[in-house]
Amino acid sequence: MTSCTPATIWLTGLPSSGKSTIGLGLGRMLDGIGVGYVLLDGDEVRSGVCSDLGFSDDDRKENIRRVAHIAKLLNSQGLVAICCLVSPLQSMRDLARSIVGSRFFYEVFVNASLETCMKRDVKGLYAKAEQGQLNNLTGFSAAYENPTDPNLVIFNNSIGVEEAVNMLFTHVVDWLEIPW
Amino acid sequence: MTSCTPATIWLTGLPSSGKSTIGLGLGRMLDGIGVGYVLLDGDEVRSGVCSDLGFSDDDRKENIRRVAHIAKLLNSQGLVAICCLVSPLQSMRDLARSIVGSRFFYEVFVNASLETCMKRDVKGLYAKAEQGQLNNLTGFSAAYENPTDPNLVIFNNSIGVEEAVNMLFTHVVDWLEIPW
Repeated sequence: MTSCTPATIWLTGLPSSGKSTIGLGLGRMLDGIGVGYVLLDGDEVRSGVCSDLGFSDDDRKENIRRVAHIAKLLNSQGLVAICCLVSPLQSMRDLARSIVGSRFFYEVFVNASLETCMKRDVKGLYAKAEQGQLNNLTGFSAAYENPTDPNLVIFNNSIGVEEAVNMLFTHVVDWLEIPW
Repeated sequence: MTSCTPATIWLTGLPSSGKSTIGLGLGRMLDGIGVGYVLLDGDEVRSGVCSDLGFSDDDRKENIRRVAHIAKLLNSQGLVAICCLVSPLQSMRDLARSIVGSRFFYEVFVNASLETCMKRDVKGLYAKAEQGQLNNLTGFSAAYENPTDPNLVIFNNSIGVEEAVNMLFTHVVDWLEIPW
């Protein structure tokens, strides 16, 4: 394994903005240069360790608190944590940063327009929300606050997955000072 | 990294029975043969992802549910999870096994007598309990049910750490069918 400063790469953005796809791509590239990582994906976390939580602000906050603590634990054991969560409010991302520790926390805003996300609608959430079958969908019927000072913004409306992943990988290895 | 079946190694036993020491030793030996692992230690988990939980049976169960889900997630990404938790009741360990999946779950009973554990008293818990400053201490004032059918029992009263770790490592690599 390549020796590097462990870190938490936190991808935030609207549902269907591309967080998980880009996060997974980053993981594969890190693996390719021998850096150990764990992907903490919002959907997977919510079906497991956070299956007792809903989508109220308090529950979202608790969801993020738990994921941030898992990320911190992974970092303490030399692994990079890649966290892909909507994490809609600045206060929630600030909480995650404070738990992980600012110098280990790399915040990535996956910035795709609501129009783009609604077109993609990978999980059919926007369609459900439009039909009144889903409340509190971030960006549609619940607030999303753009990050005020992210480490990186990926404008993910029209660029391809490969380009987005390469951009993130290049910035992350530079930030982590990994030789590759 | 050595390719192997990912698994969850679950160490159960009284406080100060030696779970964390043996678990850490196992991790180092796995690392030595290139197997990626994460150590999920009860104390660390309780100070982070489970800091909202106490020591009632319900809270202990929730603690174990979360750890088991984290272990499952790690296993799904090719990492061995080494979980060191008192996990006092059979029903709790059964819950963990059912979450992780029986074929990926290796239960280790770190069996040290209460007398031995009270002598070690690594964290001073037994002393506090004797002075009436701590309730619900497993083995002292709260029940510990011996595992009914563990994969391995380590009698950890008088053997040295190295011997205990070697024993566990040998059994685990055999069970995982890792060439080394």
